[in-house]
Amino acid sequence: MISEKMKELVAGSSVIRAMFEEGRLMAKKYGAENVYDFSLGNPNTPPPSTITENILDILSTENSIHGYMNNSGHESTRSAIAKSIGSDLTYNNIVMTVGAAGGLNVILKTILNPDEEVIVFAPFFSEYRHYVSNFNGKLIIIKPDTNSFMPNFAELKQAINKNTKAVIINTPNNPTGVVYSKDTLTKLATILEQKQAEFNSSIYLISDEPYREIVYDNYEVPNVLDFYANTFIAYSYSKSLSLPGERIGYICVSAKMNYASEILSGLNVANRILGFVNAPSLFQKLVEKYVGTPAEIMLYKNNRDILYKHLVELGFDITYPAGAFYLFPKALIEDDVQFCNKAKEFNILLVPGSAFCCKGYFRLAYCVGETTVKNSLDAFTKLAKYYNKPTR
Amino acid sequence: MISEKMKELVAGSSVIRAMFEEGRLMAKKYGAENVYDFSLGNPNTPPPSTITENILDILSTENSIHGYMNNSGHESTRSAIAKSIGSDLTYNNIVMTVGAAGGLNVILKTILNPDEEVIVFAPFFSEYRHYVSNFNGKLIIIKPDTNSFMPNFAELKQAINKNTKAVIINTPNNPTGVVYSKDTLTKLATILEQKQAEFNSSIYLISDEPYREIVYDNYEVPNVLDFYANTFIAYSYSKSLSLPGERIGYICVSAKMNYASEILSGLNVANRILGFVNAPSLFQKLVEKYVGTPAEIMLYKNNRDILYKHLVELGFDITYPAGAFYLFPKALIEDDVQFCNKAKEFNILLVPGSAFCCKGYFRLAYCVGETTVKNSLDAFTKLAKYYNKPTR
Repeated sequence: MISEKMKELVAGSSVIRAMFEEGRLMAKKYGAENVYDFSLGNPNTPPPSTITENILDILSTENSIHGYMNNSGHESTRSAIAKSIGSDLTYNNIVMTVGAAGGLNVILKTILNPDEEVIVFAPFFSEYRHYVSNFNGKLIIIKPDTNSFMPNFAELKQAINKNTKAVIINTPNNPTGVVYSKDTLTKLATILEQKQAEFNSSIYLISDEPYREIVYDNYEVPNVLDFYANTFIAYSYSKSLSLPGERIGYICVSAKMNYASEILSGLNVANRILGFVNAPSLFQKLVEKYVGTPAEIMLYKNNRDILYKHLVELGFDITYPAGAFYLFPKALIEDDVQFCNKAKEFNILLVPGSAFCCKGYFRLAYCVGETTVKNSLDAFTKLAKYYNKPTR
Repeated sequence: MISEKMKELVAGSSVIRAMFEEGRLMAKKYGAENVYDFSLGNPNTPPPSTITENILDILSTENSIHGYMNNSGHESTRSAIAKSIGSDLTYNNIVMTVGAAGGLNVILKTILNPDEEVIVFAPFFSEYRHYVSNFNGKLIIIKPDTNSFMPNFAELKQAINKNTKAVIINTPNNPTGVVYSKDTLTKLATILEQKQAEFNSSIYLISDEPYREIVYDNYEVPNVLDFYANTFIAYSYSKSLSLPGERIGYICVSAKMNYASEILSGLNVANRILGFVNAPSLFQKLVEKYVGTPAEIMLYKNNRDILYKHLVELGFDITYPAGAFYLFPKALIEDDVQFCNKAKEFNILLVPGSAFCCKGYFRLAYCVGETTVKNSLDAFTKLAKYYNKPTR
């Protein structure tokens, strides 16, 4: 019989994943072109066209490419990544991981004692809840500021105590698409530094950055390492190179972090004993070839522009999304779950804001083909009409 | 600062991995040909020569090969594997995992409540300790039967109680190379069934089988599923296809398992929330092409024969190893750690039996090139001479 904790998890399961499976069934029933599946962050932009030739190149030139290496990954890959992030970093600051999901688990395994607290800002990627629970940590949720979807600093100050071990941020953000500015990061760092001094503790900032390169309108995403010493970056190539199924990412540890060398040893051990052992070898070498290559974002930008314009015209209330590939509009009724169920009747698959701890909103993942976006517009119009929403 | 639990782990770290790193340093210093590194199970047999063409074939024919799929893996891959194991299995019984290490963690996450007990037979792969600890389980170690290195059934009967959730076996075995016979598995199953009835509980048998195909002398490895209903198999392609760095394996759930559908949902969720998300996509499709292909074992067999003969001639006491690629001889002195340190002076890298909870023995991983084996023979002779061991 499965464990008590797991029973709850299976019962709750992932709303997003359930939607993904439902989308597949609906596509079979109605035809893929008639289902507007905005439920999952499965990038529709194909990987770079050079991927196949680069894989071939690695297979023909690298010796024992499929063998074990150091649990932290290939040194050449880690060096290339370190160099691309900051001049004070070496391969020692980088641990290759099974995506950012693997990286976050490795970080939390390394730092968390039971019942220590990890703070997140709602709305947040719901998996954080499980990652913290995996290591018997306590998740502390800061209520959303629905005006801006920026961190609620007043609440943050009150939430930090001597048991606070980490704060997770995610910018560009899933599900809102907002990007934290330099000013926001400066304020955040100031609070964390004050609280570290007040409690004589180390409070780690974990910056989950799978969308770092997915940003529009020439918006600049600040480097979090420049703001706060005790910072981890958890990165994934899932979105920037459209390789989510291959599970490749890394952890970067700030050169200025307290206890950095102890932490790095811990990450290495955690990567091993959690059963990852190491990030997939071939794909480590592959991403090494793409360090510094800009992500292909034109499809996403185009989708965002079409959908944002259309939904605003239909009267939806949406915070302007500068990055990632999500819109997070206010639902047209209070009950976001009911709203998403209604949308399903128009063949539109959305994820309720409740899944991100933010009731009354919904997430729309626009990392889909342009045709899906264009074909969906009528369905959104009908959905809005159903709720008697007058067109602006 | 890292967690208390992790501090201990970093301090203890992995003896095997430490030896791996030391081997690399020694190879740099003395030249690779003068260091006899028998420390790590990093297969020296190259992967099948068809791997590159098969990867190319997948890249050129499969659509969105790098995208997300169901957390349990590609259905086509799971179907092919299910069919190869048993006629009563379907893709539903298979969950693709990040190697067997990932699989074991996913199984334990799914079934273990805090303080429930997991039984292992010494000597055992030391990572089991950490995998059980990851989910706050309690590891119960059955003392070794050094005459045969078969399970000590008398002790097993006494160890099982109402808190026993699982028993891990590993056949062909790391570190001893022994293979459990049908008779052994029948006895084991009988005990587990009796104890399930006695305690009105489900006791799961977890069969860790990365070496299933690595077996010599036409020895047949029985299918554990045929003996006991509540069985999980954790399999890895690391050894059979020499792909340890790519992290690809699977869990197979017996069709006769109690609560099978609940368990399978749990495995799917655990795979996701532990941060694996799914096994690497390209390598799932790749192993699908090798289902049923026999492993390339001639190099290993040859190495085993040369080393076994030589060490027995030198007076070492060794249980005949029918499978895997390990010898587990008795050390020439009581202190196995001291013995392995002495071996290092002859440029031989071994792992002390203590690392497997079996003092007085050592593990020799012979998954190395034949040249290493042949060049090492003199060094072993000198080592035996150092201890005044008369040649037989």
